[in-house]
Amino acid sequence: MSKNKILKSPTIRRLPTYLHKLIEMRKSGETIVATPVLAKYMNIGEIVVRKDLAITGITGQPGVGYKIKELIDAIKSFLNWDMTSEAVLVGAGSLGSAILGYEGFEENGLKIIAAFDADGDKIGTVIHDCEIFPVARLSELCKRLQVKIGIICVPAPFAQEVADDLVAGGVKAIWNFANVALKVPDSVIVQREVIAGGLALLSVKLNSQNYDIN
Amino acid sequence: MSKNKILKSPTIRRLPTYLHKLIEMRKSGETIVATPVLAKYMNIGEIVVRKDLAITGITGQPGVGYKIKELIDAIKSFLNWDMTSEAVLVGAGSLGSAILGYEGFEENGLKIIAAFDADGDKIGTVIHDCEIFPVARLSELCKRLQVKIGIICVPAPFAQEVADDLVAGGVKAIWNFANVALKVPDSVIVQREVIAGGLALLSVKLNSQNYDIN
Repeated sequence: MSKNKILKSPTIRRLPTYLHKLIEMRKSGETIVATPVLAKYMNIGEIVVRKDLAITGITGQPGVGYKIKELIDAIKSFLNWDMTSEAVLVGAGSLGSAILGYEGFEENGLKIIAAFDADGDKIGTVIHDCEIFPVARLSELCKRLQVKIGIICVPAPFAQEVADDLVAGGVKAIWNFANVALKVPDSVIVQREVIAGGLALLSVKLNSQNYDIN
Repeated sequence: MSKNKILKSPTIRRLPTYLHKLIEMRKSGETIVATPVLAKYMNIGEIVVRKDLAITGITGQPGVGYKIKELIDAIKSFLNWDMTSEAVLVGAGSLGSAILGYEGFEENGLKIIAAFDADGDKIGTVIHDCEIFPVARLSELCKRLQVKIGIICVPAPFAQEVADDLVAGGVKAIWNFANVALKVPDSVIVQREVIAGGLALLSVKLNSQNYDIN
């Protein structure tokens, strides 16, 4: 067992939010950001901000702050978002459509190059510039396009079958929005999104005045 | 400054996933769950499972496990999901529709009782059993319905205005899916969902073999 560096998932989850703010600031011509500005935007303490950003290898200058361009580059590099990753999406229902239409992915180095659905009426149509292919062609097209990321937006009962097809197609990482645990080979990474996870945080914040959450 | 108990957000985020699994197991007639079963389902270590569940006040029996019914009740009680909270949703586009159609909220004690949109064509229609009202009536109806939770699914440029209306309507907690930081009074809680947060975790897991994430 190797001793690996331990990263905190709340820190990693926050990085895209920093990135979004920094890109906005750069667009309005700013070049330096002070830690308190980021702390206020993120609604967390300044010490947490400094710890968060330190994982990218960048430390701010005391009394001055961070160079915005340097920090943007460091966050993108840390997340491997300085190169664009291509993905396919399966399940072009309302959630799938919302994800296809999400404009933020440009910042996140993600490009969804094809979408798949089982509904014959949707096949051949275009949703947010993305053509919908029949799910029967999923493995074949993943292989041919050499896509490494698959996004699952189908209802839970169909998610395992889709995951199997993605794995057969050579996909190495699955972003799973279906409310089910997927069985995949150890070499494949699954990031499961549970929408109720955020609701749980909201509920605890709303009802439990005696807790701090970090 | 009071010394509060500190809770870890990854633990809170995981609770709904445990809950979902436990409810499934109860439905299939099981009464006891062993820690390794939960660890495998959650794809985390057994020690983490024990620590997670301890925040609900329940400790498993060594060599046996947890009583499923007891654990379900404890998680629901911890999250205040043993009573149903009513919410309104603003923005009935594809993301809003996906959230209105999410079947898991039953488990999570959340009931969306009205939705709002600015699009005249949507007003008066019903999406997933929820009637769509004009956004101009948001404050008034929040007050009249005494709703405490507002879910924002509008595009970022409109989110602050919607938040102001929710606050004016007496809402105490905002679940914000728009990619923007909202300004609200200190007494109002905001849980901001950043879809790219999950993608950041996926990217780090995919590219950084030398890290452990907790």
